[in-house]
Amino acid sequence: MTGGREDGPEFDHPTEKCGVVGVSLSDREAALPTYYALYALQHRGQESAGIVSHDGFQQHQHVGMGLVGDAFDEADVDALHGSAAIGHVRYPTAGSVDKSCAQPFSVSFKGGALGLSHNGNLVNADDVREELAASGHAFTSDGDTEVIAHDLARNLLEADLVRAVKETMSRIHGSYSLTIMHDDTVLGVRDPLGNRPLVLGELDDGYILASESAAIDTVGGELVRDVKPGELVVLHEDGTGYDSYQLVEEPNTAHCFFEYVYFARPDSVIDEELVYEVRRELGRHLWREAGVESDVVMPVPDSGRAFASGYAEQAQSEGEGVEFAEGLMKNRYVGRTFIMPTQEARERAVRLKLNPIKSTVEDRAVTIIDDSIVRGTTSGQLVDLVREAGASEVHVRIGAPPINAPCYMGIDMATRDELIASDKTAEEIAEEIGADSLSYLSLDAVTDAIGKSEADLCAGCVTGEYPYDVAGEASDRDAERPAIDAAGDD
Amino acid sequence: MTGGREDGPEFDHPTEKCGVVGVSLSDREAALPTYYALYALQHRGQESAGIVSHDGFQQHQHVGMGLVGDAFDEADVDALHGSAAIGHVRYPTAGSVDKSCAQPFSVSFKGGALGLSHNGNLVNADDVREELAASGHAFTSDGDTEVIAHDLARNLLEADLVRAVKETMSRIHGSYSLTIMHDDTVLGVRDPLGNRPLVLGELDDGYILASESAAIDTVGGELVRDVKPGELVVLHEDGTGYDSYQLVEEPNTAHCFFEYVYFARPDSVIDEELVYEVRRELGRHLWREAGVESDVVMPVPDSGRAFASGYAEQAQSEGEGVEFAEGLMKNRYVGRTFIMPTQEARERAVRLKLNPIKSTVEDRAVTIIDDSIVRGTTSGQLVDLVREAGASEVHVRIGAPPINAPCYMGIDMATRDELIASDKTAEEIAEEIGADSLSYLSLDAVTDAIGKSEADLCAGCVTGEYPYDVAGEASDRDAERPAIDAAGDD
Amino acid sequence: MTGGREDGPEFDHPTEKCGVVGVSLSDREAALPTYYALYALQHRGQESAGIVSHDGFQQHQHVGMGLVGDAFDEADVDALHGSAAIGHVRYPTAGSVDKSCAQPFSVSFKGGALGLSHNGNLVNADDVREELAASGHAFTSDGDTEVIAHDLARNLLEADLVRAVKETMSRIHGSYSLTIMHDDTVLGVRDPLGNRPLVLGELDDGYILASESAAIDTVGGELVRDVKPGELVVLHEDGTGYDSYQLVEEPNTAHCFFEYVYFARPDSVIDEELVYEVRRELGRHLWREAGVESDVVMPVPDSGRAFASGYAEQAQSEGEGVEFAEGLMKNRYVGRTFIMPTQEARERAVRLKLNPIKSTVEDRAVTIIDDSIVRGTTSGQLVDLVREAGASEVHVRIGAPPINAPCYMGIDMATRDELIASDKTAEEIAEEIGADSLSYLSLDAVTDAIGKSEADLCAGCVTGEYPYDVAGEASDRDAERPAIDAAGDD
Amino acid sequence: MTGGREDGPEFDHPTEKCGVVGVSLSDREAALPTYYALYALQHRGQESAGIVSHDGFQQHQHVGMGLVGDAFDEADVDALHGSAAIGHVRYPTAGSVDKSCAQPFSVSFKGGALGLSHNGNLVNADDVREELAASGHAFTSDGDTEVIAHDLARNLLEADLVRAVKETMSRIHGSYSLTIMHDDTVLGVRDPLGNRPLVLGELDDGYILASESAAIDTVGGELVRDVKPGELVVLHEDGTGYDSYQLVEEPNTAHCFFEYVYFARPDSVIDEELVYEVRRELGRHLWREAGVESDVVMPVPDSGRAFASGYAEQAQSEGEGVEFAEGLMKNRYVGRTFIMPTQEARERAVRLKLNPIKSTVEDRAVTIIDDSIVRGTTSGQLVDLVREAGASEVHVRIGAPPINAPCYMGIDMATRDELIASDKTAEEIAEEIGADSLSYLSLDAVTDAIGKSEADLCAGCVTGEYPYDVAGEASDRDAERPAIDAAGDD
Repeated sequence: MTGGREDGPEFDHPTEKCGVVGVSLSDREAALPTYYALYALQHRGQESAGIVSHDGFQQHQHVGMGLVGDAFDEADVDALHGSAAIGHVRYPTAGSVDKSCAQPFSVSFKGGALGLSHNGNLVNADDVREELAASGHAFTSDGDTEVIAHDLARNLLEADLVRAVKETMSRIHGSYSLTIMHDDTVLGVRDPLGNRPLVLGELDDGYILASESAAIDTVGGELVRDVKPGELVVLHEDGTGYDSYQLVEEPNTAHCFFEYVYFARPDSVIDEELVYEVRRELGRHLWREAGVESDVVMPVPDSGRAFASGYAEQAQSEGEGVEFAEGLMKNRYVGRTFIMPTQEARERAVRLKLNPIKSTVEDRAVTIIDDSIVRGTTSGQLVDLVREAGASEVHVRIGAPPINAPCYMGIDMATRDELIASDKTAEEIAEEIGADSLSYLSLDAVTDAIGKSEADLCAGCVTGEYPYDVAGEASDRDAERPAIDAAGDD
Repeated sequence: MTGGREDGPEFDHPTEKCGVVGVSLSDREAALPTYYALYALQHRGQESAGIVSHDGFQQHQHVGMGLVGDAFDEADVDALHGSAAIGHVRYPTAGSVDKSCAQPFSVSFKGGALGLSHNGNLVNADDVREELAASGHAFTSDGDTEVIAHDLARNLLEADLVRAVKETMSRIHGSYSLTIMHDDTVLGVRDPLGNRPLVLGELDDGYILASESAAIDTVGGELVRDVKPGELVVLHEDGTGYDSYQLVEEPNTAHCFFEYVYFARPDSVIDEELVYEVRRELGRHLWREAGVESDVVMPVPDSGRAFASGYAEQAQSEGEGVEFAEGLMKNRYVGRTFIMPTQEARERAVRLKLNPIKSTVEDRAVTIIDDSIVRGTTSGQLVDLVREAGASEVHVRIGAPPINAPCYMGIDMATRDELIASDKTAEEIAEEIGADSLSYLSLDAVTDAIGKSEADLCAGCVTGEYPYDVAGEASDRDAERPAIDAAGDD
Repeated sequence: MTGGREDGPEFDHPTEKCGVVGVSLSDREAALPTYYALYALQHRGQESAGIVSHDGFQQHQHVGMGLVGDAFDEADVDALHGSAAIGHVRYPTAGSVDKSCAQPFSVSFKGGALGLSHNGNLVNADDVREELAASGHAFTSDGDTEVIAHDLARNLLEADLVRAVKETMSRIHGSYSLTIMHDDTVLGVRDPLGNRPLVLGELDDGYILASESAAIDTVGGELVRDVKPGELVVLHEDGTGYDSYQLVEEPNTAHCFFEYVYFARPDSVIDEELVYEVRRELGRHLWREAGVESDVVMPVPDSGRAFASGYAEQAQSEGEGVEFAEGLMKNRYVGRTFIMPTQEARERAVRLKLNPIKSTVEDRAVTIIDDSIVRGTTSGQLVDLVREAGASEVHVRIGAPPINAPCYMGIDMATRDELIASDKTAEEIAEEIGADSLSYLSLDAVTDAIGKSEADLCAGCVTGEYPYDVAGEASDRDAERPAIDAAGDD
Repeated sequence: MTGGREDGPEFDHPTEKCGVVGVSLSDREAALPTYYALYALQHRGQESAGIVSHDGFQQHQHVGMGLVGDAFDEADVDALHGSAAIGHVRYPTAGSVDKSCAQPFSVSFKGGALGLSHNGNLVNADDVREELAASGHAFTSDGDTEVIAHDLARNLLEADLVRAVKETMSRIHGSYSLTIMHDDTVLGVRDPLGNRPLVLGELDDGYILASESAAIDTVGGELVRDVKPGELVVLHEDGTGYDSYQLVEEPNTAHCFFEYVYFARPDSVIDEELVYEVRRELGRHLWREAGVESDVVMPVPDSGRAFASGYAEQAQSEGEGVEFAEGLMKNRYVGRTFIMPTQEARERAVRLKLNPIKSTVEDRAVTIIDDSIVRGTTSGQLVDLVREAGASEVHVRIGAPPINAPCYMGIDMATRDELIASDKTAEEIAEEIGADSLSYLSLDAVTDAIGKSEADLCAGCVTGEYPYDVAGEASDRDAERPAIDAAGDD
């Protein structure tokens, strides 16, 4: 299928950090639909999966390591009683992977039970944590999520739900899409700039909040709309409706454009745009801006497929006699762990994952389409692979602008030094990866395909200008927001 | 990517049972290339993986459960000393999954050390086992492989290697592709009808035997040729060459045609035919034999993709204005284990795996392409899914003939009762699955695309006539071969 | 060492079901002393161990399977913040052993967080559970503990702590010693008849509740006194003191006499009596009542050692020239799991555990001392073992009365049919186990050694008369108490 | 029970490194008796357990981590076919504990299958390993055992069994008791000085070799005799007898005296002496040499019990009015793993393991008896414990001479710097541990109780003079033997 990270992080791609879900039903147990929704969001995190539910009297929880299917067995789901639940899938990290950071985070405090799932990256987590620690709060992890949960719990001891959430929103800064459960009330909150996605859906007997609309499809629901930046949505405990509170309002948004390009599933709808069609449209733009004559157009599977199909279609519609074919076979079993003892073996790693289909490339001029280049190492190996299989020419076309700068909004990108485009032109990159030519898409084409102005998108990784003041980085907004701590997490 | 079982068994598809590897090098340790080759054959078995090596003095072995990447860590591979090794990946079964059946099977006997990897299904395993047990052999599993190993070990106490293998081949009947290691000598053997594939490749410093040529590509080798039916290939211990012994000769072969249609990787070459091109050619035949007018042609991902691409290409080349697009998003994380407590949930299972892309199917006449139908349950759910997403017409085209009969040659197919085509016409099936029309490809088109006569293929699952006398089934050969025990394994 | 079940359940002995702990300190974290106290109570339960703590804001918990040392690692204990904690060790069962039944049971409910550890067996658990379930409570286990916790939590939504506990005590019937934590307040409760033990101790900086005083010693505390039957003890959150509430008063108690004979550690003090001395005194009584001339007195290790030492001392003090020596070597590694495939092997099982020391028994008249006989199978094997090693005479003396009837108060005893003494005289038993003579101690001697009247002890397993009305059993009290459900648990 | 390390390494005691078993039966499977024999030797090693068997055609093996009961389940034992087997239990180490070092070590080589279990420590393992490695042997561990196995396997390619063993014995130096299986022939070998024990026993239907006679008792066999130093015993494959080959003869032996004092089970017989009686005799000598007046004599459980019983008996027989009682309750569940985060807690560790029984020690003069002192830290804590419990005087008596020097013969003792007796007199040690007096037993008393001359015992840890030339240490023999590598293992 076209699109995103369907089978684990692609080589040399940014990594999304989380997916969140919240469900409130009238009568039925909420755990099973939450479980299915997490399944649909598995591409947003493979390290751990968890669900917290509430049955009106008490809270239940289960968190497990690994994929959703491994983290839960049937007895685990059956024990999660209650018609309210929230869920979470967490991203894979290189370093310490343990259960203490897994989510949803739950607190059993004097004001009841609180559960919280977070997608994003907080700005001032350390400041808030220090302040809470000073007043006696014990933290079990160094994650942002626990900070939000403790702050909100503290506020709940003194204020009603809506005012407590508003108070917490006034204290935390950064990007966040949250699903929260206080006792048996499920909430959704999106940060004032709406950096990470969050949508609201309706079921026959209740409502659902999720990072992507595909999760709503999977449980047979209907997409209602995106949760608005700065909005709090409170699902009714009886599943009959929801209330909306616009707690903060900003003149512009800062939606992450990379959700359209790579992170989101192709079958998800963001702000009424189907991601698959956005990608095909990006492919069409790519031909128009940077088309090159060749015998065959082939995607890098699977991330380049929708782009390549739009590119080839546009070329063919303009009378170009180019074939669209698969030129690389992907070994879907190459997981996170395989052994590469030597440098020489490491270079052969791409070969474990991708093998050329000779009939597509031998003695032919080839155009390879992908959605992005991060470090460029894989691109060079792909070009080599295709040349060794007999290609006479190898052109590379990328369906997004060059990534020049790190992300501070919750994406695991790379350091600036590692980003091949941070100090090289397209020509220099083409030479480095051994391609006959290389072109990126313009940012204008991206805003055009998405249908939003640049002022409403976060393209910090392309422009180096961020919607928040990041220490040492330029801002594309008013400078009055607090600086983001680049070391932040979650 | 187009084609086979890249990410675990597809819904409602037959299941290949094994992949085998053998490597003999001049100087280098053979375990690591064997490990990589098994990675490339992972689609042929996900239950367990194992390697047995020999360093000239002693044998080493490691077998682990699960995928290759899970079954081995670096220390495991490092401990497998020696320039000779064989490997095995084993299929997933519903029932008892334990280490005692994992392969390669190894025996430390008075004549030295023997290792054996097997792909296929033996005819008369029970007879041979009983005879060996009567003479005092203790068996640790009920698998065919241990029977072959013990028989061969017994013969090796009395004869040289070639004669011992020939003696064993005269006693065992059925389908088998074997890689064997006696002390540090690596052998490859293929049954007289060549039912399962086995190829020979050359490396810079040695030789490799593997179920598919893609495994040779992965370790940077060159395909030499297919091992011939009835042939024994003995690799030289010093990696400098190999000897061939044609131990049995038969007038015809019985290659499994389903290797071309579904099992083998698209980038593998069987008998000089690239599987991807065979599948595209089958797609072209499918348009020619059974093309139907529609707005869009879409594959069932991933098994139908190469077929759909050939079908659409042929249609377009004949001036048909049909679009080729993805209409179903595949969730690659839906593994073997997920929870489906109720019947209603079970019906929604396909939804966990596949989600329609609305822009492709809404208000359009759609042709769905796949390679085969076994039970038909999934097909019906797919048609429903696409209709619910708004398709105005749904046509189904299948790139192979109807499967009518079970397989006794080592494939986990289904019982005759479960096979939807065993007692229904295409029209009846179309009605049952809710399609506006359904067509299969003819067997003639298959033999044409593969380039072999029907007499040299095993198409028992289509014709109900088998290359061996199976009790209660018709034969397409001389009836003098022994009957296959339908309960046999491995 | 003399005494009880120090290294796992002895062969053919009753099984204690639980040990409980509660700790409240002024400043220090309570988890580590709780952990050590559980270590000291390990003989009361080896199936699982758990601790729940509270840091004033939120509750923390960890429960693990197996021994305390296996259930917790250092990080687990470190994460249990707060100066209040309760703990639990649970008994080994033959059947289903899973985490859902492990304790302390914790509930996060709208009135805060509740933790509960239970030793005993409830009478009317099913009635209370049904009533709570009818009002919407979801239960995750079929244990008594969850029932008490839910009932108490419900009461806490409507009353203060003391009244809520009193209300719960009025609803539950049976034997129970409980440690409870509501938010950061630690309580201890003992049932009105005081069937299971519970003591209060003082630390430098706080207070501790525990099943036995040895746990107080282990953490360097001083025993204050036994918690009284029907008493609620509330530890101050700041560790400076405690309050006592005598919520129910009964004219008599029903202390389990078997705690003195077998369950409790020899170094524990119950009602101001040191268990080791009680056992030596029982041994002295045993010589006086049933002394027999022999060359050597030897204990069944380890349960018979204190009895044997008192018996031999009394004999020697009366001028009897008997030696006191070890005659059986105990293999301390024979755990719960070892393989005994055949009946013949099963008979040899006792040999795995105990091996005669020839110099003690060969050609000598031997008196073997133990504390009790349940089924009698092991006794027979011991007598055989000692005879095979050359003993000329084998006499058996038991430091408690014959066990005739089951226990309904939380001990895993045996069914009446299995109890060898239920239908046999001492002479018949002697014959069955092959001893030259066998004598038990009288109940009078037991009450004398313990220093309590029979009216204040539960000796139901000896007399068949119980402190509660058990369906089908006689009562030694007023018949107005509710019947105990023999199937009850925990 | 009196004696050794029945429940895991005692605090502050030397650690035995291994136990070995070999069994050859006429008809029955040998694995189960081997398993039971390992159970009986569990005190000699708790890290791993393994069995290798041979059924006449092929070899089978299973090795698992932990105790025998954890390392094997019934299926594991059932799969170990054949009437010949050897087994091994391995000691616990602080450092790297992995399966690659577990034994029996097995090699499948061109001359058949070899299995080998080793107790002892080789002198020149590194030299032999280097030589073998130079001729192409790949080693998977750095243990002595693999070196012996490879050397023997190499010799077996060129000589018959007896000559091959003799050749290997001429090449390896150090202490070793071995059980070996070549194909289905079981052998036992003891080094020329007989440092570690090895005994031969007879079963109804075969023969058994084991480190201690208690293992023979456990399987219902009769002790035949000790295997002689320098002797090779070959069990007949049909279980009907054995052959003896005295391959090396030395004028003296070097039996480890600590086997009698601590390592061996009290119920084992070494050179016709029952260990329990030797220990009681040591206790009697101790009273005679260093008796001190006190109210009560109490053992350190369990290692001091036999000594204390002999000591008290001797005192009483001389008219001394001393009581013999238990004064310390041992918590048998304190295993290898428990948490001691702080120094203060570490000091309290002994309290987790031992708790005073007040009635024994309060207001009384106490004599504590143990078998040895290594570092002295525990002794000091015990004295403190007993004093805190109210003892008016605390005397310590040790049933063996002071340990001054390390062991190079396969025992995990301590470094010379750590040994408290290496630079302190008994008076100084008494002061350091806070005892009113402290006395050791003389070496003469030890040789007297054991019944051997000092010339036939290894007492290197007492005298600092070793039976082999250890670099930097004095020798009590001819200096022509090769130096022992102090870093050696196994």
